[in-house]
Amino acid sequence: MTESDLPVVQLTPGRWGDPAHPVDLPAAAIDALKHLGVRRPAPAPVVPGAVGPGATPDQLAFLTGVVGAEFVASDLGARWAHTRGYSTTDLLRDRAGDTSDMPDAVVYPATHDEVLALLAGCAEHDLAVVPYSGGTSVVGGLAPNRRFVTVDLRRLDQLLELDEVSRTATLQAGVRGPAAEALLADRGYTLGHFPQSYEGASIGGYAAARSSGQSSAGYGRFDQMVVGLTLATPRGTIELGRAPMSAAGPDLRQLVLGSEGAFGIITSVVVRIRPRPVERHFEGWRFENFAAGLTAIRRLAQDGPLPTVLRLSDEAETAVNLADPDVLGGGASGVLAIVGFDGPYNSGTAEVLTAAGGQNLGEGPGETWRVGRYRAPYLRDPLLDEGALVETLETAAFWSRIPALKAAVTDALVKSLTEQGTPPLVLCHVSHVYETGASLYFTVISAQTDEPLQQWRTAKAAASQAIAAVGATISHHHGVGTDHRAAYADEIGPLAVEALNAVKHVLDPHAVLNPGILLEGS
Amino acid sequence: MTESDLPVVQLTPGRWGDPAHPVDLPAAAIDALKHLGVRRPAPAPVVPGAVGPGATPDQLAFLTGVVGAEFVASDLGARWAHTRGYSTTDLLRDRAGDTSDMPDAVVYPATHDEVLALLAGCAEHDLAVVPYSGGTSVVGGLAPNRRFVTVDLRRLDQLLELDEVSRTATLQAGVRGPAAEALLADRGYTLGHFPQSYEGASIGGYAAARSSGQSSAGYGRFDQMVVGLTLATPRGTIELGRAPMSAAGPDLRQLVLGSEGAFGIITSVVVRIRPRPVERHFEGWRFENFAAGLTAIRRLAQDGPLPTVLRLSDEAETAVNLADPDVLGGGASGVLAIVGFDGPYNSGTAEVLTAAGGQNLGEGPGETWRVGRYRAPYLRDPLLDEGALVETLETAAFWSRIPALKAAVTDALVKSLTEQGTPPLVLCHVSHVYETGASLYFTVISAQTDEPLQQWRTAKAAASQAIAAVGATISHHHGVGTDHRAAYADEIGPLAVEALNAVKHVLDPHAVLNPGILLEGS
Repeated sequence: MTESDLPVVQLTPGRWGDPAHPVDLPAAAIDALKHLGVRRPAPAPVVPGAVGPGATPDQLAFLTGVVGAEFVASDLGARWAHTRGYSTTDLLRDRAGDTSDMPDAVVYPATHDEVLALLAGCAEHDLAVVPYSGGTSVVGGLAPNRRFVTVDLRRLDQLLELDEVSRTATLQAGVRGPAAEALLADRGYTLGHFPQSYEGASIGGYAAARSSGQSSAGYGRFDQMVVGLTLATPRGTIELGRAPMSAAGPDLRQLVLGSEGAFGIITSVVVRIRPRPVERHFEGWRFENFAAGLTAIRRLAQDGPLPTVLRLSDEAETAVNLADPDVLGGGASGVLAIVGFDGPYNSGTAEVLTAAGGQNLGEGPGETWRVGRYRAPYLRDPLLDEGALVETLETAAFWSRIPALKAAVTDALVKSLTEQGTPPLVLCHVSHVYETGASLYFTVISAQTDEPLQQWRTAKAAASQAIAAVGATISHHHGVGTDHRAAYADEIGPLAVEALNAVKHVLDPHAVLNPGILLEGS
Repeated sequence: MTESDLPVVQLTPGRWGDPAHPVDLPAAAIDALKHLGVRRPAPAPVVPGAVGPGATPDQLAFLTGVVGAEFVASDLGARWAHTRGYSTTDLLRDRAGDTSDMPDAVVYPATHDEVLALLAGCAEHDLAVVPYSGGTSVVGGLAPNRRFVTVDLRRLDQLLELDEVSRTATLQAGVRGPAAEALLADRGYTLGHFPQSYEGASIGGYAAARSSGQSSAGYGRFDQMVVGLTLATPRGTIELGRAPMSAAGPDLRQLVLGSEGAFGIITSVVVRIRPRPVERHFEGWRFENFAAGLTAIRRLAQDGPLPTVLRLSDEAETAVNLADPDVLGGGASGVLAIVGFDGPYNSGTAEVLTAAGGQNLGEGPGETWRVGRYRAPYLRDPLLDEGALVETLETAAFWSRIPALKAAVTDALVKSLTEQGTPPLVLCHVSHVYETGASLYFTVISAQTDEPLQQWRTAKAAASQAIAAVGATISHHHGVGTDHRAAYADEIGPLAVEALNAVKHVLDPHAVLNPGILLEGS
């Protein structure tokens, strides 16, 4: 099964994954949780009952006037389905039936012009809007600081143009990952963007939150794939990108990418595409320890030849993720790297890894990873059911800071959660590599305290402080949302924040766009 | 001789090149000019006599208070040496002794903090400032719309840090191209940035104007090399870049890169560096015509393997530039491509070019190009002496638009100059390639009319309209300056212009920074 064969998944509040594909925890995992002090199943998710008022008749009339009555939903089901994203704190609040971040209505525009008309009329009708494509934010990107209406972009689902000479495709914002691959596959092309949220996330979200996928070593990040975009703002349209690169002023595409709906709603992007590979190869490599693996993958990132997929788990993650530790060979110690190629196998990559002390484990571990690549987050559901706290966070830095960054974040998480009486398991892998640096992705598992929301927020704050102290960035590919807003402001400094607020004020003078997301607002 | 062995050249107003290395036109070239109607030598350059008042005593006292008296120059020589850049219209006005764009004084800060102190005090002392590093702008980037003081950054000339693990170098803005290569070569590294202005331009200018060098196929553009930067503004410092890539909001580095001094003065950048290659190879390839060559280089840009240098001249440029047309083989028709490798020769590249109909001409034409690679602009001086008009312009677009772009710009230039009674020779080459598109670089030669400034402006306006009509960008690597300001505003649209002005107003509330450059200003 290739990416384009995957079904479009409808996500459900309170659950990460498609309820049609539940994942059960193996008995061994439940035993392991007991060692972390996980003792009691969590309460079953609550379906919200009474909710606050939705949109007013005047507001509904305005929305209906723009898109038609059949494309405005104000029932509890639609509103609840668009509440929050998929962070663990979101899931915990969903499970508790907390309706505080529920939209007043959901509107489904079909065209750029309808989006434009919605935004143009928001201020007059006292509406704030949250753009919604896949709904997979894990940083609070769908929870603004005032009542709002959700603009669900799923009807903007077209491949508008495919330029085979330039190898570009114009895709609308609401095209989900698998649908984009299917549309391109029909013409023999691929986008090559496979984030872990792939089954649910969509083109507009990839762009707005600077997504990065599992094949980033070969295909780059989403922001590197975008060569043009169209932005609808309350004051009109901005179209950017007349050439792959330009010296005509700042690269404004890179100002819109990552703006998380605060400057406007991206309605379509022009992306670089590539011919669909006719073969793929995934294999596992073992290194003696994380430091040795880090040196090896840095060598590939800096001197090549780079594979398409390159990931390196640390000792803890390797031990937890490998169902059969014998995969690593005698002694079962060491760390696992996954190396993947779209297209022919490159023996040059293998030579570099071997010279750096790597041991080729063959296709077995590679295929195991490939098959399960989108399944890991599904484990959140049964883990939360069991009463465990499980969450991820990620960061990036220059290579020379990576070892200190890993140590500092791990220490901060262990210290904070241990002090709270719930010593955690902290797993880490390098998920994306560049010539000058890399990203680190952490998974944290512990028992829940009686106040799991506060428990995680305390631990996350400690990790964020550690990231800042090392001089790393608060997010490599999850984005800012509301969760990272303060850390982001510290990272870029008050003058840069003021500049961004000035841009927002020009494009969104009445602050109707995702208020409180990315920027605190005025 | 390698790039790091080249001397640092002191440029002189009215002349492109180092006066110590004059270039003579071959007799055959002078004959060829006669065919274009070039009949009379131009008047000899005039040294300006009477000039307007310079900085006031109060202003000089302020400048002296910040940097010390020995680093403030208000003499005619220093001021004249910092007047304008190196476009043909600049050179023509220089030759006429036109002092209208002369700074009131020149100040030479030594540190970021001195730059910061200068900018902080400008408004109070009614000073506008123009940042100056190499002075090689060809788009009016040094000619603001009010009286000003030049901030010459040449004393910011240090390699501040070299991180061998991350392969990054922190270079100050005033480091000239050859000096940067020499500093890095001492440690075994190269930046790999070799624009045609290399001998004179500097790190700060590369960053502020989004420079692209002749080895861009292998090393990328300068804006792709920058992973961090420090910006001094009248309101304080902005430091950006904690990781190669981040999802923490928009990529603000890309907002500063290309801002041409309108938002602040870049005082240092962190750039990606690479090991210095131990070998280099340059060779020539012949294609039947430009269209065939275009298909071949597009194939390399999209499917690889890319060389380090990749350029393709059209029929006219090939005929003019090849001193010995027999280089092209029997019949002497066709077009010339230059292919260069830093490091081992890649036979895979040759296979792709051969399969696309290319004929390998060997190292002769490649070496000829390499040796003369920085000399072409020097020919402006003797050409202007002879009474010819010579200028270049460049643009970029997606591959599918390149043929139409080339035809439209050529037609516009030929039509405009022919209508003015001076039918031109228009040469063109592809100077930079990307997966989704490429840049086109045009050279125009004709006889001068009695009003050569107006003559060129008329032709350039026609070319700019043609670029916009095709949907290409007004500049691939020269920048905006004042010359492209109106076309740039049309390219990004009024809302984006307003957003940029809002950023400028935050960082530069009294509009002291390069007023009229990039943005018209309020």
